[in-house]
Amino acid sequence: MTYHAPIKDMMFVMTRLAGLDDIAGLPGCEDATRETAQAVLEEGAKFCGHALAPLNAAGDRHPAAYTNGDVTVSPGFEQAFRQFVEGGWQGLIHPSEFGGQALPKLLATPWLEMMKAANLSFGTCPSLTDGAIEAILLAGSEEQKRRYLPKLIAGEWTGTMNLTEPQAGSDLAMLRARAEPQDDGTYRVFGTKIFITWGEHRMTKNIVHLVLARLPDAPAGVKGISLFIVPKFFVNEDGSPGPRNDVRCLSIEHKLGLKASPTAVLQFGDNGGATGYLIGEANRGLEYMFVMMNAARFSVGVQGIGIAERAYQKAAAYAKERVQGRAVDGSSDAAVPIIRHPDVKRMLATMRSLTESARALSYVAASHSDLAHRHPDAAVSAQHRGIYEYLVPIVKGWSTELAVEVASLGVQVHGGMGFIEETGAAQYYRDARILPIYEGTTAIQANDLIGRKTVRDDGAVAYGLLAGIDRTLGELEAHAGYGKNPAFAALRVHLAAGRASMAKVIEFMLVHFRSDPNAAFAGGVPYLKLAGIVLGGWQMARALLAVSDQEADDPAFHRAKAAMAHFYATHILPRAAALEAAILGASGAEGVLALPDESF
Amino acid sequence: MTYHAPIKDMMFVMTRLAGLDDIAGLPGCEDATRETAQAVLEEGAKFCGHALAPLNAAGDRHPAAYTNGDVTVSPGFEQAFRQFVEGGWQGLIHPSEFGGQALPKLLATPWLEMMKAANLSFGTCPSLTDGAIEAILLAGSEEQKRRYLPKLIAGEWTGTMNLTEPQAGSDLAMLRARAEPQDDGTYRVFGTKIFITWGEHRMTKNIVHLVLARLPDAPAGVKGISLFIVPKFFVNEDGSPGPRNDVRCLSIEHKLGLKASPTAVLQFGDNGGATGYLIGEANRGLEYMFVMMNAARFSVGVQGIGIAERAYQKAAAYAKERVQGRAVDGSSDAAVPIIRHPDVKRMLATMRSLTESARALSYVAASHSDLAHRHPDAAVSAQHRGIYEYLVPIVKGWSTELAVEVASLGVQVHGGMGFIEETGAAQYYRDARILPIYEGTTAIQANDLIGRKTVRDDGAVAYGLLAGIDRTLGELEAHAGYGKNPAFAALRVHLAAGRASMAKVIEFMLVHFRSDPNAAFAGGVPYLKLAGIVLGGWQMARALLAVSDQEADDPAFHRAKAAMAHFYATHILPRAAALEAAILGASGAEGVLALPDESF
Repeated sequence: MTYHAPIKDMMFVMTRLAGLDDIAGLPGCEDATRETAQAVLEEGAKFCGHALAPLNAAGDRHPAAYTNGDVTVSPGFEQAFRQFVEGGWQGLIHPSEFGGQALPKLLATPWLEMMKAANLSFGTCPSLTDGAIEAILLAGSEEQKRRYLPKLIAGEWTGTMNLTEPQAGSDLAMLRARAEPQDDGTYRVFGTKIFITWGEHRMTKNIVHLVLARLPDAPAGVKGISLFIVPKFFVNEDGSPGPRNDVRCLSIEHKLGLKASPTAVLQFGDNGGATGYLIGEANRGLEYMFVMMNAARFSVGVQGIGIAERAYQKAAAYAKERVQGRAVDGSSDAAVPIIRHPDVKRMLATMRSLTESARALSYVAASHSDLAHRHPDAAVSAQHRGIYEYLVPIVKGWSTELAVEVASLGVQVHGGMGFIEETGAAQYYRDARILPIYEGTTAIQANDLIGRKTVRDDGAVAYGLLAGIDRTLGELEAHAGYGKNPAFAALRVHLAAGRASMAKVIEFMLVHFRSDPNAAFAGGVPYLKLAGIVLGGWQMARALLAVSDQEADDPAFHRAKAAMAHFYATHILPRAAALEAAILGASGAEGVLALPDESF
Repeated sequence: MTYHAPIKDMMFVMTRLAGLDDIAGLPGCEDATRETAQAVLEEGAKFCGHALAPLNAAGDRHPAAYTNGDVTVSPGFEQAFRQFVEGGWQGLIHPSEFGGQALPKLLATPWLEMMKAANLSFGTCPSLTDGAIEAILLAGSEEQKRRYLPKLIAGEWTGTMNLTEPQAGSDLAMLRARAEPQDDGTYRVFGTKIFITWGEHRMTKNIVHLVLARLPDAPAGVKGISLFIVPKFFVNEDGSPGPRNDVRCLSIEHKLGLKASPTAVLQFGDNGGATGYLIGEANRGLEYMFVMMNAARFSVGVQGIGIAERAYQKAAAYAKERVQGRAVDGSSDAAVPIIRHPDVKRMLATMRSLTESARALSYVAASHSDLAHRHPDAAVSAQHRGIYEYLVPIVKGWSTELAVEVASLGVQVHGGMGFIEETGAAQYYRDARILPIYEGTTAIQANDLIGRKTVRDDGAVAYGLLAGIDRTLGELEAHAGYGKNPAFAALRVHLAAGRASMAKVIEFMLVHFRSDPNAAFAGGVPYLKLAGIVLGGWQMARALLAVSDQEADDPAFHRAKAAMAHFYATHILPRAAALEAAILGASGAEGVLALPDESF
């Protein structure tokens, strides 16, 4: 197999860091036991390792192809999708009343990670369907839910999200697609949408497009956008697909990566108007999208973790196999596998510790989401919602930025072979590059982090997380391992320094957000990265504490975990101070913003 | 034009930072006046902008192609190469006795930069020819010089370097190609060489392969390697090409980038042996290669600067044109060009300041090379040689690492469009990725930097450079601008901190190189990056001082230069401390090396 799902680390994070047992105690989550989790992950790992992973390179070499409005998918994708449907994977987290399994997000997240790792191009399709399901659950009528949800949740149909237009990317205020009300209560939808992931294919009998468009009397800007269901085929009363709707695929993009995931240009209404059905209330489309967006953004963050893990596994395997050069310490006269060279080990440790830290942070975030949704105490639920929402832009932004770094290191570990496409390392480097862009660039995530997530509550959630770090710092010092294993002191020092940097930056944002917005926003992406590094380091410290309490269980695993925590402390956490320096003081913004546009 | 050579910055760096006037005062360099430099750069910029740059994207879409031993080059390359030959560009730095122009390296470096920026795939071909020329100049017989140099220097023939074999990449000790002496004084060469850049093509009438191989009685390892000339076609007495030699191209690679540069697998001796001519003495091949290597590595560093500049120009143009979103400071009700968004400006400033710093450092290095080669005082010459040789692995390693970062930011500035191949930003991201790998990976450069360049002279050269930084720090404080322009204080603070980090790391290397080589080598790449950042920051400080003394001349240019220096101080220099933390203390190496190979 070219990909082995890291079930052991997944289970460790779920049980020791993300509180799976607590989640299983929530109403409706009784099934989320350790045994169920282990079983689901093992089943998922089989499907991902055997069915999805082998198609990944072939999909890159034989991208989805466009002919006359139709899209042909990459070799094997149709069959793999059938297996995916038969396995019930689309329904994992969705409500049982529509056929789903209603498992908590904490349990679905490792599954998501392994699907993305095994085949990112394949994995984008179910994620878009998830988005459509959530939108309909959130704002659809009972009739709409009845008509669409069972098919979508079963995986019989797929879903898409139609936001972007050529002139409206990150700026949806500029959206022009329009919807004209008809006497029968439906709408005629007109417009061109671009960058529509899995916007056309024949793997399923129907595609449910969710489309943002403006009503004739809508206010300008983002408050005049409504959300419509536009199915590719009309749906008969018995649920079977009827005639074709007025939407067609004009072309698919020729992309750097993710080539088996067709990115479509969709044209709505060239023949009199595509029939659409309003979801929820008029002019509230963007609001619904924003609710869904948190889930979609979280999911893209997990894509970053998946591809980072895949790139790491490939590089580690190569480094153990490729023999080249003598050991620098003279410990061997013969040539050695390159993993024996300190810099190769440094690269692998960078890849792995970044990936493990991001995995831990995202699963912890998933757990907060479950607590927010299911905890019976409204105050507790609200507290967890606040934490989850703070973490979403970080999970999205930082996990994807680090995925690009990790995939690039993966190429480097392979040396010249890394640049040869047949080796496969280059595909991860190409595929990963979209992740910090789609579902909102890292800067868009950072704007969200500063404005809605840090300043709006006067830093309450952010400071709450720092208090959590303080407790962990105390536990490190109080632990019996402190003074014995140098990882404890390293984490104590560097996590405390990172925490101090993060505190200063939060204060900077609170002070400058209104008085000097340019300075605040110039520091947005560095703040997001800093938060990702420090909160990831916090999870590494918690992992160190957890393994140190049960060393006897699985010494090799625990030793590796402690070594990664130690490495992260000395090699990754110190970046926080550099980011702090870039943000703080007016100088940062002056340096960026002093220069007039025409000087560039 | 899609690429404008940054002649103004190039001339500024040459004249104000790299001492062009001093170089013109050296014996044999009398022609290297400011006027000549300006004229050469303008002529070069025309050729690069009009003839080479337009072929770059087409070369990516229509890569060099292999059929039956022949390689067809990308569209337009053959004609462009003719223009290149007619312009006499191949001979720029080579001796006039063989037809070259014998210009100093300082003047050739900006030319190299613009050729690489305009068309990296094209530019690899003349660089390999440079390598062949230098090898023959260094160790060839008079007869070999007479036979090959005039053709190579005129550009009528091209050259290649044949080092790598499937089992021998970075580790040339494992090289297996063999050469059997013949009675007539020639050799029969047998073996397979891979990754041979421009190893086959028909743009010129002949190709001069320089091949590393072992003699039958050669000692094992790197001390048993000899260097041979193996021409594609035998050379008649009148210099015309004769019959075909026994070397053929088996295939070319399918690569992530640099697709118009054919990377060949060459088979020597399948039909009785390729006729080769020994260069210099037997078993000294690697030694000759190492002398050439400094030039080749420097040249690859300049490739990094070229592609970074190109990626920056494209991103800046897009950011000024693409309208999306409101200004965060509320200064505009309408949507604005995205360059108005602080994070876009931050990304552009990162790209530009990194590129400018690397350009300055590489031109300064070129100037040291000229002083080493031409200064009449042997002691002065030796001093400059030491500095140049210290800087080569840094110019190579850091300029190429930052090129990958800059090209990646270039994609990010374009948002979703950056992921679409037709946009063109993705090509730079793909092309750049080979640069930290070929001619020795960044780790190989770092090994050179630690061992031969830092430890061998007990840090003399390295500490000498720190003393230079100290002088600049003093000049910053003493300058009238200190206290007025905040860039001075920012550079004073952050350059001093970077200098302190570098001093600690040099000491660490001197102490640990022999006693704990694993710890030293684990810190090699971080040391190389740190040195690049600090020495680049030094050049930015020198640039600030230079522009502050002549503000009246060209206020927009000088203001931009000062802003970039300021930005570099707050955003790039602070990374030095993070790298120091990764290197220092045994903890760094422990963290990397504690884990056994099988745990990865």
